[in-house]
Amino acid sequence: MTARSILVVGSLAYDDVRTPTATRDHVLGGAASYFSTAASRYAPVRLVGVVGDDFREEDVARLARHGVDLEGLERRSGRSFRWTGTYDFALDTAETINTDLGVFGDWHPRVPGSFADSELVFLANIDPEIQLATLAQVRAPKLVALDTMNYWIAQKRDALLRVMAKVDVVSVNEGEARQLCETFSIVRAARDILAMGPRVLIVKRGEYGATLFTRDFSFWTPAVPLEEVVDPTGAGDTFAGGFMGYLAECASLDDASLRRAVLHGAVCASFAVERFSIDGIAAATRDAIEKRYDTLRSLTVL
Amino acid sequence: MTARSILVVGSLAYDDVRTPTATRDHVLGGAASYFSTAASRYAPVRLVGVVGDDFREEDVARLARHGVDLEGLERRSGRSFRWTGTYDFALDTAETINTDLGVFGDWHPRVPGSFADSELVFLANIDPEIQLATLAQVRAPKLVALDTMNYWIAQKRDALLRVMAKVDVVSVNEGEARQLCETFSIVRAARDILAMGPRVLIVKRGEYGATLFTRDFSFWTPAVPLEEVVDPTGAGDTFAGGFMGYLAECASLDDASLRRAVLHGAVCASFAVERFSIDGIAAATRDAIEKRYDTLRSLTVL
Repeated sequence: MTARSILVVGSLAYDDVRTPTATRDHVLGGAASYFSTAASRYAPVRLVGVVGDDFREEDVARLARHGVDLEGLERRSGRSFRWTGTYDFALDTAETINTDLGVFGDWHPRVPGSFADSELVFLANIDPEIQLATLAQVRAPKLVALDTMNYWIAQKRDALLRVMAKVDVVSVNEGEARQLCETFSIVRAARDILAMGPRVLIVKRGEYGATLFTRDFSFWTPAVPLEEVVDPTGAGDTFAGGFMGYLAECASLDDASLRRAVLHGAVCASFAVERFSIDGIAAATRDAIEKRYDTLRSLTVL
Repeated sequence: MTARSILVVGSLAYDDVRTPTATRDHVLGGAASYFSTAASRYAPVRLVGVVGDDFREEDVARLARHGVDLEGLERRSGRSFRWTGTYDFALDTAETINTDLGVFGDWHPRVPGSFADSELVFLANIDPEIQLATLAQVRAPKLVALDTMNYWIAQKRDALLRVMAKVDVVSVNEGEARQLCETFSIVRAARDILAMGPRVLIVKRGEYGATLFTRDFSFWTPAVPLEEVVDPTGAGDTFAGGFMGYLAECASLDDASLRRAVLHGAVCASFAVERFSIDGIAAATRDAIEKRYDTLRSLTVL
């Protein structure tokens, strides 16, 4: 069958990133960039986002070359989203040095009519009220996933709970899961989050891999073991891109597909962190993805 | 076949443990207590250790009831090893408040003649020179494993490297692996440690599970997901007990056996952390272990 189409709504940004060994300024970032680059390895991707008039044409062309449909890309007068972050030696959680939302700050996404029939939807990290308003513009999605972050959990908890009740998949990192449920136990947090409505929860754990929870089972994968992580920025959104991308190819969204999709998410994330910006996942061919999938799979087989 | 016999040399202690929700004073602890209780679920265990004249007869009887052969237990005049530790909410790494080595401080283990034919040997965390001297007293072991800690890595690196070159399995937590190899990358650390001599490295990662590395493959397991961890003390030694115990039952120490042994280690550790002291693993029947093994196994099966 032909892969289903995937709609992503989220940020396109320019990042300044500092790691203990290197620095990159003004590189393409943002959740939608990472997600769509990964998901485009699998399926047609439709992007809804906003950029300022400082956004480089070459970056638009780059996404287009990956087959991303940019009809939903708004260009507005003003600055594009800018993020400056730094990592310590553990290369796990970023410390945000500066955020300048620019035109992203008061943006209200409009889903083009031609995107309204999208079957899979990824609501990247953004104000949950915006996630709700965006989702309302998609006609009859088969699978909706959302990501969020500590800020919305703390500041817009009610709106976040409303949108969580409307989606199929919630994707958070383990710190966010703990914050959302006010418990250290990931097992308890998973049960609590699933009680909020979604049928699938993905807990991302950085170098420790990821876990998918449903009411009936959980599936655990390590991360792809890497000699060196260069820049963890975007790993979570790239994971979501691989996860949703793989599901877009599946005839059925059954439990076995969900499990394999987790592995694809982890594989895509592993490519992302090997280079700065989207360079790592952009360079990953589908063949390379499949090879690494087999490697990851082998790590847990008796 | 009958299970092979396992020799363990290590500490028996009384622990004072503080967690955010509870406190226990003067409970049975020590690497050899945890290890032998776990390993005795699988195979005959021979213990070489030392206690002071404050050691409770009921604790000796407890180990004996588990079938642990205590011919190698020395009783000396003085205090038993005492350890006081505290955990924060993450319940991962203990902060040591106080260590009083007592009679353990200047102890030189003597392996009874009747133990010299032991086929599997676990050298628990102790001065690496003592590990070397103890190992020399075992005739022709088929598999020798050692545990160590940050103190010996920093203070007795040369002796530690000498004993590591003589053993089959090195078991450390990920912080120790990083410290030993001065790298953040566990993949690099694993390669470096295997180059030091052992054919198997086990890296324990607390709630994130454990990984077994050889020169040819690695095997990754999550920890058994638990609603609540009560006390992580002894988890690593209990892991080693399950790992070695299972191997003692195996006709061959091949790769498949090593993989399954890792799961048994993780399962035993999960019982240990559910209660204070050795109470959790002591209460785990072999049936309960097998059930939890199946659960753990299912978490990574597609």
